[in-house]
Amino acid sequence: MEELIGLREGSSGKPVTLQELWGPCPHLRRTIRGGLEWLKQKLFRVGEDWYFLMTLGVLMALISFAMSFAVGRVVRAHNWLYREIGDSHLLRYLSWMVYPVALVSFSSGFSQSITPFSGGSGIPELKTILSGVVLEDYLDIKNFGAKVVGLTCTLATGSTIFLGKVGPFVHLTVMIAAYLGRVRTKAIGETENKIKQNEMLVAAAAVGVATVFAAPFSGVLFSIEVMSSHFSVWDYWRGFFAATCGAFMFRLLAVFNSEQETITSLYKTNFRADVPFDLPEIFFFVAVGAICGILSCAYLFCQRTFLTFVKTNPLTSKLLATSKPLYSALAALVLASITYPPGVGRFMASRLSMKQHLDSLFDNNSWALMTRNSSPPWPKELDPQNLWFEWYHPQFTIFGTLAFFLVMKFWMLILATTIPMPAGYFMPIFIFGAAIGRLIGEALSLAFPEGIVAGGVVNPIMPGGYAVAGAAAFSGAVTHTISTALLAFELTGQIVHALPVLMAVLMANAIAQSCQPSFYDGTIIVKKLPYLPWIRCRKISSHRVIVEHFMNRAITTLAKDTPLEEVVKVVTSTDSAEYPLVESTESQILVGTMQRAHLVQALQVEPPSWAPGHQQCLQDILAGGCPMEPVTLQLSPETSLHQAHNLFELLNIQSLFVTSRGRAVGSVSWVELKKAISNVTNPPAPK
Amino acid sequence: MEELIGLREGSSGKPVTLQELWGPCPHLRRTIRGGLEWLKQKLFRVGEDWYFLMTLGVLMALISFAMSFAVGRVVRAHNWLYREIGDSHLLRYLSWMVYPVALVSFSSGFSQSITPFSGGSGIPELKTILSGVVLEDYLDIKNFGAKVVGLTCTLATGSTIFLGKVGPFVHLTVMIAAYLGRVRTKAIGETENKIKQNEMLVAAAAVGVATVFAAPFSGVLFSIEVMSSHFSVWDYWRGFFAATCGAFMFRLLAVFNSEQETITSLYKTNFRADVPFDLPEIFFFVAVGAICGILSCAYLFCQRTFLTFVKTNPLTSKLLATSKPLYSALAALVLASITYPPGVGRFMASRLSMKQHLDSLFDNNSWALMTRNSSPPWPKELDPQNLWFEWYHPQFTIFGTLAFFLVMKFWMLILATTIPMPAGYFMPIFIFGAAIGRLIGEALSLAFPEGIVAGGVVNPIMPGGYAVAGAAAFSGAVTHTISTALLAFELTGQIVHALPVLMAVLMANAIAQSCQPSFYDGTIIVKKLPYLPWIRCRKISSHRVIVEHFMNRAITTLAKDTPLEEVVKVVTSTDSAEYPLVESTESQILVGTMQRAHLVQALQVEPPSWAPGHQQCLQDILAGGCPMEPVTLQLSPETSLHQAHNLFELLNIQSLFVTSRGRAVGSVSWVELKKAISNVTNPPAPK
Repeated sequence: MEELIGLREGSSGKPVTLQELWGPCPHLRRTIRGGLEWLKQKLFRVGEDWYFLMTLGVLMALISFAMSFAVGRVVRAHNWLYREIGDSHLLRYLSWMVYPVALVSFSSGFSQSITPFSGGSGIPELKTILSGVVLEDYLDIKNFGAKVVGLTCTLATGSTIFLGKVGPFVHLTVMIAAYLGRVRTKAIGETENKIKQNEMLVAAAAVGVATVFAAPFSGVLFSIEVMSSHFSVWDYWRGFFAATCGAFMFRLLAVFNSEQETITSLYKTNFRADVPFDLPEIFFFVAVGAICGILSCAYLFCQRTFLTFVKTNPLTSKLLATSKPLYSALAALVLASITYPPGVGRFMASRLSMKQHLDSLFDNNSWALMTRNSSPPWPKELDPQNLWFEWYHPQFTIFGTLAFFLVMKFWMLILATTIPMPAGYFMPIFIFGAAIGRLIGEALSLAFPEGIVAGGVVNPIMPGGYAVAGAAAFSGAVTHTISTALLAFELTGQIVHALPVLMAVLMANAIAQSCQPSFYDGTIIVKKLPYLPWIRCRKISSHRVIVEHFMNRAITTLAKDTPLEEVVKVVTSTDSAEYPLVESTESQILVGTMQRAHLVQALQVEPPSWAPGHQQCLQDILAGGCPMEPVTLQLSPETSLHQAHNLFELLNIQSLFVTSRGRAVGSVSWVELKKAISNVTNPPAPK
Repeated sequence: MEELIGLREGSSGKPVTLQELWGPCPHLRRTIRGGLEWLKQKLFRVGEDWYFLMTLGVLMALISFAMSFAVGRVVRAHNWLYREIGDSHLLRYLSWMVYPVALVSFSSGFSQSITPFSGGSGIPELKTILSGVVLEDYLDIKNFGAKVVGLTCTLATGSTIFLGKVGPFVHLTVMIAAYLGRVRTKAIGETENKIKQNEMLVAAAAVGVATVFAAPFSGVLFSIEVMSSHFSVWDYWRGFFAATCGAFMFRLLAVFNSEQETITSLYKTNFRADVPFDLPEIFFFVAVGAICGILSCAYLFCQRTFLTFVKTNPLTSKLLATSKPLYSALAALVLASITYPPGVGRFMASRLSMKQHLDSLFDNNSWALMTRNSSPPWPKELDPQNLWFEWYHPQFTIFGTLAFFLVMKFWMLILATTIPMPAGYFMPIFIFGAAIGRLIGEALSLAFPEGIVAGGVVNPIMPGGYAVAGAAAFSGAVTHTISTALLAFELTGQIVHALPVLMAVLMANAIAQSCQPSFYDGTIIVKKLPYLPWIRCRKISSHRVIVEHFMNRAITTLAKDTPLEEVVKVVTSTDSAEYPLVESTESQILVGTMQRAHLVQALQVEPPSWAPGHQQCLQDILAGGCPMEPVTLQLSPETSLHQAHNLFELLNIQSLFVTSRGRAVGSVSWVELKKAISNVTNPPAPK
């Protein structure tokens, strides 16, 4: 194809080839080509990881948006039905109740029939997975469909069941990341690597939060705080990149869908920015934090107790074991009946959707002051311009409805968390906190109707600011995180209450962390998943505890010269997953580890060389091809507890052998570490 | 003292004792006492660390505020002098110039005379310390005075020298934390622990940033990103607590000093919140990020080159070695002459202080549109209501002044960083970035004077938003951090540009990180401090590199049966700080390590038992009391590079021995790791 067509003749009379025609400046072209090559290399040097993360972010944003879209349509249909069905109370009640009951039982039945892992939020299990435990099939892509459909149904029940999206969405994102990771490793022909995979899953968790709330900063920080105890700055950057891609895409779709003019926050507030609060109010903000902390302890305790009760009570446990949809339907029936608007629901603003709950609670006017002299009517239909009318009742006043809302939602939320279907528990907690803050804020605005005068300027109190603080503090206390403060700012699009909200969150966390395990840790405890606690005690004396003090000395080693009968005896009498292999019975020098499964397999196969008179020993099995794994890390008896704990957490290890001068002298696993940590935190009474 | 006084007689006729009189309800009192005891225990169980952190935060806020106060007074005096001195150009020039020259040469001379460590920002050195290297005396409290006085003088020169406060303030905070830590360990009679101490220093760094900017969130995140590569969530919480205490106290003092009505952000902006930007503007925000990224690479390259030039050039290096104040005075003279307002300074808004620079650049009006038809006069005095008049010149227009400002400050900033005195380099970079963003924003607002129309609504472009994005992106690119985006929001008190600013920062970081080391890493390289690079390559193949491939095999072991002559020979011929001690020359089983210093000491002392005919060996020295340190951690040849790197970074280790089956077979230190990392990132060409 070098000289295909002679199109026209050049000045020299020779026919000009196509190549010459298109290549008049070989030097310039070479430079450009070199430049492009360099750019390509540069872009690929940044690493294919970035492309992977971007794909993940965009994909999850699409799924999140599609889900919101579908949910919106279902909710709109439900509202239409409820509005149009006529004034008969029975019909209205039925139309109000049938929807959630049907959706919840379908969600529960459908998702559970496909996979038993699809219930709940999934964050506790992810936390366990990210700490290195292998939960078989939990990240399998086949769970994806079940969780998506189930979650959509759950969300479509709206504020009746009052559950959210975050937890399952994080689980979905991590599933997709694991799947994409497998696809990628297959495509480029590499073998999978566990560390590499974990890096991606950490970033995926951030994407999950970010695409639900369109909040990249708090998405990253929240997922870090909830999921891990150590993390690398590199993972944090990776998370930021993916979360930004996801959040941007998610909001972009909203703009394209004409939901809004431009990219803004989800629950935009309109607080006064010049003097958002007065200095003395800081005290009340901290008080809100303290109250949220105390209430969160009560909530966590009741929630855990009730969950255990449901699991152990013969009636409910049988119901949950045999017919989950029935249990779900019953629970949904209770919840829907209570929230029926013309009934009890009238006193707890149950016509509002969850988004409207937040929008109304973050309102910057003081309802107490506005209803002091005039009482607004209870509109027959929801008034989108004055959502807060729903919170007002002529006899109860807004204080009554807010307090009633808190009391009822407290146990309703606990009941809802026991329904075995995909559902997130963060959003309801966030709204609950906002209601606590709003109640206190309204009380304050009524107590100081003139506002707090400072420096000659009168500044009325904004109860909305307290609602923001309450939401951040309560959700922070329940989940044991601080980044909820940042989440509150990103969701509202205003950061004017930065310091007071942060102080409230810190106060709430101080109380909650010293009294109760977090919501996720509590679930881990109830579900009996393995976990490694933190060393809460930071006394200097705790740094003196070393591995020698707490390691498990009773280890069974297999030596290369152990006779096979002995090996068989060891394998049948113990049940460790792996055995330390030592050089000889005498020296006990650690050489590697052997998987129990491999050993059993090798023992079942008849050894190929059978020489009479020669006693078979482990060495022969090893020579016969039974794999031995090298020891990549080992502890010394002098390693400190803190160092060992750091190692276990950072490298996601479940057990390590302890060697002294090369001899295997013990082992340390989560069990020993847990015992040592509890000894350090609550030292045993001296005998 | 049981029945001291019988005051009056009870109903039973028996005299009532004082104890009974004051103790009518023994049960209630016991309960109350029990409750108080419980509360006390609870409060102390939360850990004395919290009290320590609070003290640190409050103390640093006081120092920060006092410093700002003193600086404010000096600057006001300077302004007064400059204003009152009359119209003679010579006198005015002298009054403008003498102040900074005197202050800078005093700052340089005073601080350098007390300690040579007080120059620069201190962050590179802190980074090295936190990674486990011991820099003698760097955190000594005697540096404190030098640094405080020096920094105050530096800041008092104002925008003439154009330097900031963050870096040295972080250094000051860490110094105070180290000192308080020593006091505390002495007070409670504990021995010092290195891990414990490091935990506190990490939190202290966060306090440093937070008390300068009153920004707890970004204070914590920025210090994490700059200082470490791994961190625990526990440290992050600790940092938040301390930073919040510091930031709150700092702003509280400002309120008490009547500087403001209530607690607000430092550089409050007033952007339109309903539609802060239009969707297509996202593209321009990312472009601002890209431009900032490219400029930051140029800046970092020039800065490092010039620093090396100053250190190697015979003239400047001699000047710096012998008379630092003279060099400083000369540099200050150049900088002050250029910024003289009636001269060249007229074209670069040099009458503004650094705070006013930021305030004016973040202005929410478009100067280009405002000066299109009318030109404001250049006021004889600075007009505090219209700071932006300073940026306008009838012939140059604002584009000319902004561009001139950027060009001049580029090299002036590089010159200023070479002055050997305590100074921070973050703030000038932040302002520089804001000017870049402003310039682009103004150009856009002139290009699209009608704003970008979307959805039928006309939204004029706000150049202030671009200034925020530019400030965050440029400072983020120079320091290789992302949290500068959050800092921009906390400083301005508005988070309306959340996504575009974050995208600009990510873009700038992507460019800067792939081309240049960060400002702090660059300084570490120029100052030849030890450092451990990151593994930038995250390819799956990099996970297959194991310790065996890169460890140093040429280690000199000392066996217990090594004759003393041999030991002397080893000690004199090599210069390692510690030697691995093995069981015997034959077995090479690693037992522990011996410090070179201890060994030398022991060899100098005549051994007590001298039996003729018995050859003295190392065993005798050990028996004689020469200390041997146990091995707490050891690598295996099969440990992967990533694992080893994690271990080194997380546990702040400088070198580890590698054992295989108990035998010491090699060692890995930063040198080997660096080599392995560079091999992984840029694989050597196959031979």
